[in-house]
Amino acid sequence: MEPRSGTGSVQDAPAALPVPELLARGRALCTPPLRAAVARLAAPMDTVAAYHFGWIDRDGTPVAGDGGKAVRPALALLSAEAVGAPAQVGVPGGVSVELVHNFSLLHDDLMDGDETRRHRATAWTVFGPAQAILVGDGLAALGTEVLLDAAVTGIASAADAARAVRLITTTTRQLIDGQAKDLSFEHRDVVTVEECLDMEAGKTGALLAAASAIGAVLAGADDRVSDALQRYGMHVGLAFQAVDDLLGIWGATEVTGKPHWGDLRQRKKSLPVAAALAEGGAASRRLAAELADPSGRGEEGEDQLAARAALIEQAGGRAWTQQEARRQHRTALAALDEVPMTDEVRQRFVALAEFVVVRER
Amino acid sequence: MEPRSGTGSVQDAPAALPVPELLARGRALCTPPLRAAVARLAAPMDTVAAYHFGWIDRDGTPVAGDGGKAVRPALALLSAEAVGAPAQVGVPGGVSVELVHNFSLLHDDLMDGDETRRHRATAWTVFGPAQAILVGDGLAALGTEVLLDAAVTGIASAADAARAVRLITTTTRQLIDGQAKDLSFEHRDVVTVEECLDMEAGKTGALLAAASAIGAVLAGADDRVSDALQRYGMHVGLAFQAVDDLLGIWGATEVTGKPHWGDLRQRKKSLPVAAALAEGGAASRRLAAELADPSGRGEEGEDQLAARAALIEQAGGRAWTQQEARRQHRTALAALDEVPMTDEVRQRFVALAEFVVVRER
Repeated sequence: MEPRSGTGSVQDAPAALPVPELLARGRALCTPPLRAAVARLAAPMDTVAAYHFGWIDRDGTPVAGDGGKAVRPALALLSAEAVGAPAQVGVPGGVSVELVHNFSLLHDDLMDGDETRRHRATAWTVFGPAQAILVGDGLAALGTEVLLDAAVTGIASAADAARAVRLITTTTRQLIDGQAKDLSFEHRDVVTVEECLDMEAGKTGALLAAASAIGAVLAGADDRVSDALQRYGMHVGLAFQAVDDLLGIWGATEVTGKPHWGDLRQRKKSLPVAAALAEGGAASRRLAAELADPSGRGEEGEDQLAARAALIEQAGGRAWTQQEARRQHRTALAALDEVPMTDEVRQRFVALAEFVVVRER
Repeated sequence: MEPRSGTGSVQDAPAALPVPELLARGRALCTPPLRAAVARLAAPMDTVAAYHFGWIDRDGTPVAGDGGKAVRPALALLSAEAVGAPAQVGVPGGVSVELVHNFSLLHDDLMDGDETRRHRATAWTVFGPAQAILVGDGLAALGTEVLLDAAVTGIASAADAARAVRLITTTTRQLIDGQAKDLSFEHRDVVTVEECLDMEAGKTGALLAAASAIGAVLAGADDRVSDALQRYGMHVGLAFQAVDDLLGIWGATEVTGKPHWGDLRQRKKSLPVAAALAEGGAASRRLAAELADPSGRGEEGEDQLAARAALIEQAGGRAWTQQEARRQHRTALAALDEVPMTDEVRQRFVALAEFVVVRER
């Protein structure tokens, strides 16, 4: 089988495995309790949250839609099955992870001044900054509440619910640390590969790690199993992010099919740039000189951006990041070997990793 | 003994009890672990938090100071003693409550656009909105983390630490709901007494309720005891807030000693105004007409504000709120009768309530 993208596939994709069904199951089981949790927020926060989740438009009209890919709920259910529990045991974990994910999106969009997300106006632009702060705070608190509820309803023991709260709290702090690093990068010309990976581990890896283990934790898995599943999710997240960084430069636009150089335009400190700067050869040095030059910043034309992308490629930044994506993907799959689970569940983890990592644009 | 303020004292103050010592003990035991928790935040968030707490100035120079009254830590320690545990068992609770309190201050100051707090520039004006959002998020997460740590260090059982997490999570949601209501009041001319009390229960009562019970919860108190201690704290908070609302209108300035009418200037929807509007007599109706008139809003002179304060007083808003403060204070003390505790601990709770409620300005 041909790799589906230029970033390469580490192994034959298990095409027969039903990724769409795994995602649909995650949505079907987690969306109703997610909506019920969000409905606990006092007005008008419930409306702001429903808009942010894409359930209603800005006038309050319900929007038909499947609510996104929902990879995290699918992973949470699967992680319960990894330790022999029913998928349902993972549901509070899937809901919690979605709540925390959306808390961070609401706050990050405001901090970063981003005005659109998934082709829609961000919540802070529609309802104002105060509502975005407040609703984000509310979703974060609900993310803990739904896990504590799992002990009340008997889905998990009190001890396992408390361990899941520990996991989601640690994860929240990692998300915050990652965002703090990302914000600090804005004031710098250069970041190292290590700093970049560290930031991406916080912003992207940590929550996929939590999603991949939280169902198992609720089902009473021991720390060794939980750690291995978290490592799977962390490295899937880092592989995803490496691919995302490649697509951020060389990804094609939907309309023209040509590279859009988007991250170069924004001078984002992504892995290909950091790797190219670390290489130290002639192209690397020219790139460093260009990035240190404040003149013309933000006014680069298409030709200039294409030339900069070529410099990054000459300095090995593209190839290094492609290899990094494959390395991270391989490390993720290796972590699965440390967990005794049925072949069926293992193949589902493998298929979801493939789905997350391998993308065209 | 004379009441120390016009709001009245419901009983003879137990003057011999060492409130300053109770506060000093709370600070001495809770400040070191509070600082250690804050130091876990990645740079520059640790600096922003240290500035907000008043430990350093904006240049990073350490500030000598006792870090405020610290009533909440004192209550947390006392609540452990209420069920016969050492005060130390309440420490993680006192730290957690302070973290959550300061999370809400950081976010509320930004949402409300407040530029000063305790005679200092607010964190968002010094470090920018993004840092205020991020550090607030971090403090909220740490508020849960320190409670989970209590089970790791053996200060509390895992089950009791989880119950404390439940308490602080519910409290956080009440704080958020209270702030949501407060924000919604800005767009209205009139709020009812019930709405006002409801908002104040969320913004002020909930956290004092949590502080008054969290040490007992960590020490394994049953729900009946925890509920009674929470009711004590809730009503102390509501009494405090009623007094605060009185001082917000008739409180004297430090310089002139004359009333400053500050809340009237801001058209704050506080209890005396809500009570005056509910009374329905001639003065009440004139007040309602004035508040519904958009002309001259925000440009009222001293004489006009003094006349409005007189209208509120004529319509019974001042007397009602004074009575309300006494009612809430009395209800708080009555809740203590439901908890079996030593006379010494009870007297300390009584003294702290007196200290919180009875203020000159």
